[in-house]
Amino acid sequence: MISEKDVYEASERISPFVKSTPILQSEKLNSLFEADVYFKCENFQHIGAFKARGAHNAVFAMSDEEASKGVATHSSGNHAAALSLAAKNRGISARIVMPNNSNKMKISQVEELGGLIEYCEPTTKAREEAAAKVQKETGAKIVHPYNDPLVIAGQATVALELLNEMPDLDAIVAPVGGGGLMAGTALITKATKPNVYTCGVEPEEVNDAARSLASGELVGNTTLNSIADGLRGNLGPNPFEILQKYLDKLIEVSEKDIVASMRLIWSELKIVIEPSSAVAIASLLFHRQEIKGEKIGVIITGGNVDLDDLPW
Amino acid sequence: MISEKDVYEASERISPFVKSTPILQSEKLNSLFEADVYFKCENFQHIGAFKARGAHNAVFAMSDEEASKGVATHSSGNHAAALSLAAKNRGISARIVMPNNSNKMKISQVEELGGLIEYCEPTTKAREEAAAKVQKETGAKIVHPYNDPLVIAGQATVALELLNEMPDLDAIVAPVGGGGLMAGTALITKATKPNVYTCGVEPEEVNDAARSLASGELVGNTTLNSIADGLRGNLGPNPFEILQKYLDKLIEVSEKDIVASMRLIWSELKIVIEPSSAVAIASLLFHRQEIKGEKIGVIITGGNVDLDDLPW
Repeated sequence: MISEKDVYEASERISPFVKSTPILQSEKLNSLFEADVYFKCENFQHIGAFKARGAHNAVFAMSDEEASKGVATHSSGNHAAALSLAAKNRGISARIVMPNNSNKMKISQVEELGGLIEYCEPTTKAREEAAAKVQKETGAKIVHPYNDPLVIAGQATVALELLNEMPDLDAIVAPVGGGGLMAGTALITKATKPNVYTCGVEPEEVNDAARSLASGELVGNTTLNSIADGLRGNLGPNPFEILQKYLDKLIEVSEKDIVASMRLIWSELKIVIEPSSAVAIASLLFHRQEIKGEKIGVIITGGNVDLDDLPW
Repeated sequence: MISEKDVYEASERISPFVKSTPILQSEKLNSLFEADVYFKCENFQHIGAFKARGAHNAVFAMSDEEASKGVATHSSGNHAAALSLAAKNRGISARIVMPNNSNKMKISQVEELGGLIEYCEPTTKAREEAAAKVQKETGAKIVHPYNDPLVIAGQATVALELLNEMPDLDAIVAPVGGGGLMAGTALITKATKPNVYTCGVEPEEVNDAARSLASGELVGNTTLNSIADGLRGNLGPNPFEILQKYLDKLIEVSEKDIVASMRLIWSELKIVIEPSSAVAIASLLFHRQEIKGEKIGVIITGGNVDLDDLPW
């Protein structure tokens, strides 16, 4: 479905439009985790999240004819802003179906970037139906937030950059929601650095990836009760296929640990991260024995948080 | 009192112990400010503030004999942690006089770093008396938070790094409290890049630097009513002398604008900054006409904030 080559192509295609984000470290966090942890800060990416990568790859891979009809998507937020920005950079329209409980900051971001919002009920089914309707009416190409192979290849460029800068990592840890980032990460890591293990992390409350990987059959979430709003979507079939092949490990974390980890990173690393990013940190904090002495790359996925509604 | 050479020596002396901090940018903030703004992130410095630089310079410039008696200081917080860390790195003791209204996070930081805290009333006089008493009892060398020439030379390395990485800046903007950072910044900027103008910023509520520079006579603050806890100290005589010679401009900002700027940076740059750092941002936000089209380096001085007590 996607190969190493697609990731290199994505990297070249999106490089004029995305940032090569810095990698931060903290001696205090290293001594707390008893490991060398390298934080790849995609919260500093355009639109405040790695999603800018996949969206730009999908939008700039389109032919001029396809592109003229615009793009559309359904998204809980960061992909919505990302697609709006990518469409704006290409000079085409972006129609965005968003759940009506999306966070305020993510909504206003899409509006500022010129995305045309259509609200729907916060269920996967309602989102997909609304997006299909938009496509039928406008001919816009739907860019799925995590199932689109071009999006997966774009997200894989985060790990590509991290591995280029830190070639001697033992592991890469990232959160799993729809699975686009984790699939891209697992794929490019195995292709370029087969000795580096990859670890996905998801909230216990929306553990569809863990259940799907354990059973070998793609199953959906039964609840959406996680503070990690970026991870509430169901794992996509394409990411699932890739994760089954390449992912080494999957860890589930509690809501309490997600909040504690979010706060820890704000306090110690002095960066603003969203709950979905804190999920990966929680796995480090509560599995210290397993990572002792290792060099771990953690993908900080985003920093779009409503500052009036912090979970502490 | 200090020269360009002292700053280069400081840079070499402290390089094993301090981070060369990243410079961040945000397109959204650039369009808001209508200028190219480069944020030098000393909030990512050890102990979460630039103060690590001056403290390490002072501590590592001491002879072994001097050092054996330890160091002492009075500080509202970041210098306290910085001196504790520098002393720890040299293997000597640090005795810290802190005002009894210091923020919780700064207190626990000092404790974790092995600093020995002695509390005093939150006035400049009480602090200085308590520090003198400690010195008399122990023979420890007092490392003043902003008046010590070695500390000033150490703080100047922030601007040195910024100018090395961004040699075509039009201006450097930084907050003024005791004046150590701003004096070092003004001095090294004029010495190495005389065409770059330097701008100090302080809260209207503690505007001793503005009044001192306007009158040509060092005057103290009459109130301490600013949220910018790192800037409540009086301008030191040595920084005052340097600022009189080299500083190009001083701007005062309101408490309301400090809070709005702090929130803006958290939201848009995705970094945690303390109110004292936001002071410099406030000057950009509310003097946009004057900086239009310029390349501005802003020193983000620190990120030590009590996350349970945010000002919004």
